[in-house]
Order: sequence, then C-alpha cells, then structure tokens
Amino acid sequence: MTKIITIAIDAMGGDNSPDKTIHGLSIFLNKNKDKNDFAFKVYGDEEKINKKIEFYKISNKLVKIIHTNSVISDDETPLKAVKNSKNTSMWNCIKSQVDGEADISLSAGNTGVLLVISRMILKMIENVNKPALAGLWPNKKSMNVVLDLGANIECNESNLIDFSELGSALFKSLYPNEKPIVSLLNIGSEEIKGTEILKNTFKKLNELSNEKNFIFKGYIEGNKIMDGESNIIVTDGFTGNVALKTAEGTAKFITDNLKKSLTNNLFTKISLIFSYFSLKKFKEKLDPRKYNGAIFLGLNGPVVKSHGGTDAIGFYHSIDLCYRIVKGDLMSQIKNNLSHLKN
Amino acid sequence: MTKIITIAIDAMGGDNSPDKTIHGLSIFLNKNKDKNDFAFKVYGDEEKINKKIEFYKISNKLVKIIHTNSVISDDETPLKAVKNSKNTSMWNCIKSQVDGEADISLSAGNTGVLLVISRMILKMIENVNKPALAGLWPNKKSMNVVLDLGANIECNESNLIDFSELGSALFKSLYPNEKPIVSLLNIGSEEIKGTEILKNTFKKLNELSNEKNFIFKGYIEGNKIMDGESNIIVTDGFTGNVALKTAEGTAKFITDNLKKSLTNNLFTKISLIFSYFSLKKFKEKLDPRKYNGAIFLGLNGPVVKSHGGTDAIGFYHSIDLCYRIVKGDLMSQIKNNLSHLKN
Repeated sequence: MTKIITIAIDAMGGDNSPDKTIHGLSIFLNKNKDKNDFAFKVYGDEEKINKKIEFYKISNKLVKIIHTNSVISDDETPLKAVKNSKNTSMWNCIKSQVDGEADISLSAGNTGVLLVISRMILKMIENVNKPALAGLWPNKKSMNVVLDLGANIECNESNLIDFSELGSALFKSLYPNEKPIVSLLNIGSEEIKGTEILKNTFKKLNELSNEKNFIFKGYIEGNKIMDGESNIIVTDGFTGNVALKTAEGTAKFITDNLKKSLTNNLFTKISLIFSYFSLKKFKEKLDPRKYNGAIFLGLNGPVVKSHGGTDAIGFYHSIDLCYRIVKGDLMSQIKNNLSHLKN
Repeated sequence: MTKIITIAIDAMGGDNSPDKTIHGLSIFLNKNKDKNDFAFKVYGDEEKINKKIEFYKISNKLVKIIHTNSVISDDETPLKAVKNSKNTSMWNCIKSQVDGEADISLSAGNTGVLLVISRMILKMIENVNKPALAGLWPNKKSMNVVLDLGANIECNESNLIDFSELGSALFKSLYPNEKPIVSLLNIGSEEIKGTEILKNTFKKLNELSNEKNFIFKGYIEGNKIMDGESNIIVTDGFTGNVALKTAEGTAKFITDNLKKSLTNNLFTKISLIFSYFSLKKFKEKLDPRKYNGAIFLGLNGPVVKSHGGTDAIGFYHSIDLCYRIVKGDLMSQIKNNLSHLKN
C-alpha cells in the first residue's frame, strides 16, 4: 500500500487568504490528478474555506476542513500574537503533526510567530540548539539550499555545523540523485579568511566531510552562490537574510531596467513580438513564485513558510515543496545525518 | 589661479598593467581636453610606461613619470608583500601624498596590501579607529555609497558611526547638490531588530542626524539598497562584502540567462536588431566598469582601489573618480563631518 502524505495547511495566513491558499490547492490537485498518495487537512474558517472549495471545484474526497475560530493577525506584535495563538488556524495546523494527523505543516502567516509557535509545539530535535530557516535559490545547474535565512542573528560553530547537516538532509530529500556539496559563506576563499567562528567551523566541517552525508567544499563568496558548484550554502541568519534580500533587490532592479529599456519606444516594443517567447521563458525561469517556500529545520517535524504576499501560483509551489519534502523523507534524512551527535 | 589636482597613479598594479593603466589615462585625457586643473604622477617601470605613453600618444606635459624598480606581486602572501613593499610603485604612489606631491593615490594592485600600506604611510585620522572601504552602487535615482565593503570583519558602534560620517563626506564630495541620507543595513526595518551593536548605533545615529552632515533614515533591508531612498548604506565589512558580491553574482546570473534567451534561435536573434539600441543603453547603465573604484576612508589622504581585473575603460572611471573626489574636497568634508569627535 502506498503511504499517504498528509499536508496540513493554515488556510488563513498571508494576504488574500483563504482565496489564494485554496486556489493554490486547486492548482496542485489539477496538476497531480495521476497521483493518489496525498491528502490535505485545511485549518481555518470553515464557511469561508468551503465557499472557495466550491468556487474552485475541489473534490472533498482529498481535503478535510478543520474549523478554527481565530486567526493570527499581522497587526499584533509577535509577542501578543504568540500569546493569543492557541487554537488559531496556524496553531492547529502545526499541532496536527504532534497528534499524528499530518506529516508537514504549511502557512503563509507571520514568519516570526510561525517560528515561535512551531518551536513551542514541535520542540527542537535532541542535541540541536537552534532551528534554521532554509530557502531554495536557483543556480546555473539546478537549485541551492541556503540557510539560515534569518531565524538566528548570531550563530556559533555548532549551529553552523548543524545547519550543514540539516541543509544536506533537505537537499537529499528534494534531489535524491544529486550529491550534497556544502560551502560556508565567507568574504574570501582562502582558509585564513573570516571570523574565528567561521575558521573553527571550516576545520570541523573538513573533519565531518564524507561521501555519506555531504562533501565540504570550503568557503564560498557571494558572487559564486549561483554558480552551481555547491548546493548547500551555510551562513548565519543575519548574513543569509541580507544576501537573500540583496539578491532579490538586484534582480528587481535589473529586470525593471530591462523592462523600461524594451518598452521605451514603439520600435523596441515591436521587437518584443519577436523575442516574446524567449523573454517569457527567461521570466519563467526567474519567477520568484517558483522558489516560494522557506523550510524550518531542526524541529521534530517539517514546517514550510510561504511568502505572505505571494499569489495562488506561489502558494501552489509551496504545497508542491511540502509534498516533495515528505516524499523524500526529510525527517529520516535528518535523523541519519545527525546520528553523529549522539556520540 | 585654479588649484591643480594632482593624481598619483600606481601604473603597475592589476592585470595587464601598465598597458591598461596608461590606456585608461589616455581616455581620461581625451575626455577632459577642455580642463586644465589636473596633473598626473605615474609610478612604475619608466621604460615600460614610456612605451605606452608613446603608443597612446599622451602629451608629456601633464604626466610625470617616477621610476620605481619593483612592483608588488600578487603571488606573494600579503604579509610578505607588505614587508617587501618599500619603494615599489604602490608604496611610492601613496607616499607622494605625505610628501605633498599628490592629492590622491590610485592603484589596481592587491587590495589587502594596499590597505595595509596606505594605513602605514598615511596613518589614521585622529579619533577614527578603523578605515573603511567604500564603493559606489547604482540605485533607481542615481548612486549609493556603500561601506564598509570588507576592510573590517567586525565593527562596533563607534566604527559604524564613523563610517556614516565618512560615507556622507564622500557622498557630498561626489554629489554636492544632493542630500546625504544614511541608512543602516539590517534584517528588518523595525527599531527592535538586529544585533545589540546595530541597536546602539541606531540610537546614536538618531541623535547625530541633522541637516548639516546627514539625515539618518533608520534601518534598510537588502532588497531596498537600490531603491534610491537612501544614498549612504552603512554596514560592517563582512556583511557589506557578502552583499556586494551577492549583488554582482545575481546580476551576472540574470544577464547571462537573458543573453542565452535572446540568442537561442534565429528568430530571437533577428529581434535583437530591433532592440539593439535599447539593450545597449541597458547594458551601459549596468556596466560594472562605470562603478569601478573603491575608496579607503578614514586615512589622512584619499586612496582609490581599482578592480585588478578591470580594463582600460574601468581604470579610466577610477581616474575620473579620483578627480571628482579631490574636486569635491573630500578631506575638508571629512574634517567637517568629524569635528564632533573632538568634543
């Protein structure tokens, strides 16, 4: 018998929900009509959700709605939101994992609150001190896992080593046929560069590096992140967050300039007809919605955070990510990678 | 009488020198035939330089060559290179400022060595503890100054405040008609975000913020660096270096993909004829050679570092930067901005 992958969705988090979350779900269901190894638990306002389920003509067979009265508001301070979080759609969505009702949880709600609640409910994996926020980042060959993207401002050696193991496990679950190659983000490639923490981590990762869990490739500089020579980029949450956002800002700056250049007169607008399909392919490859979904690692259960401002297509991609993570058996990969911590 | 701006050039540093340095100089001279307020001291192998001076038909009137026997090699370790640096073209180029022979020094040689030598020869400005490496970065409206880009891995509050004053002074010297607006790079825009050092710096910059030196706008996230709402972005050298290189890598990734998309078949190649001039303008705007030249700030004299791998056009832009920095009277702007340190 096929194992059924159950995905718990907080239908209420993020902008324009539950419309976008249920619309995203309908896209996933339409794209996966040939499969029968998944089911959904959807948490939130039953009446609102049901309306959308009807509107998007979703079969009730695969989707179970669990009503919750309250929703975590983006207007509250994180502290207050956490205090009032019990029995919200977000809380119950994560709690479902502890109750054995789901394999993974997905929300587009407030990141900080989601992180705190997830940690409260799922608890840290034994011997792991800090959870990391991991993201997918396109590279020349395929895709990188980058972590931490902002869960921890300051990280020590053992945090960065945990992130290497956790990131490699995530990569293996998503790309079982590729070798996990870890690099440590730094401001130079020579061994003597960087902070004391980085230098110590470098030494320890060299000792841990093996064909089984991951290969450690050394330091990587910001301009090489997208080269595809490494596929797990490890850094502290401050640096990772700045790097990710700077990349986003640069991409936007360039594509905005390109758009302006290509539409600034009739002549160039005509040229767009000729290059329409190529530019469409180019745009699709760089569409940030394809990379939507950051993964909390280090907890006793996987939680995926969708961008709050994304649309139904972006949310569909984060549902797909959840499916692939469980299919690739992330939690076993993590357990395996962290087995050395017991010694 | 017009004050003559004297620029000292290390002709031997970087790839393909002195060809590129002298070629760059000839471009500057051709573009500034209408001006008579500059002169050049060129340091390096006299015979090699003279050959290039002839080749590029440079008038000897404005250029004085000062022979040096040795050059700092990129193959040596920084420590060894510094030890052997006396009377190299780089050393004498910087020393010229102490001797009153030049107003600014320019080199495309090894960054680390240049920083150490500059500090040894020019010494730190009183009450400033760490020099910063500042760079220019395009934004929606015009140009940003970003610092530190890698001179200091770790920075405390007073370093970051010095960088704000130094960066504002540089910005004022380059863009006298624009208001210097300082922002502090962080992973969120709320006051409570970030490390203790950032929070303390935030408080102190709020107190210092005034119309005279600069306006402090608060925290900025990586994705807003190029928005043009701030024009001086302050951060520690580790974060700044990662941000700069990540932006470079992202820009390369996107333009490589675009190029591939636009040349992948005959149809799209034809379309390029139509959009040729627009794309050329787009390319020109983003040409990294236009932003070539990082400035060491905090020393008793300005030193500009050209990218080692740039070409003659890139080197021309860094000569132009030197000219504008002295024309804008950077050192007086710095003295004025730092006057509060005496109290």
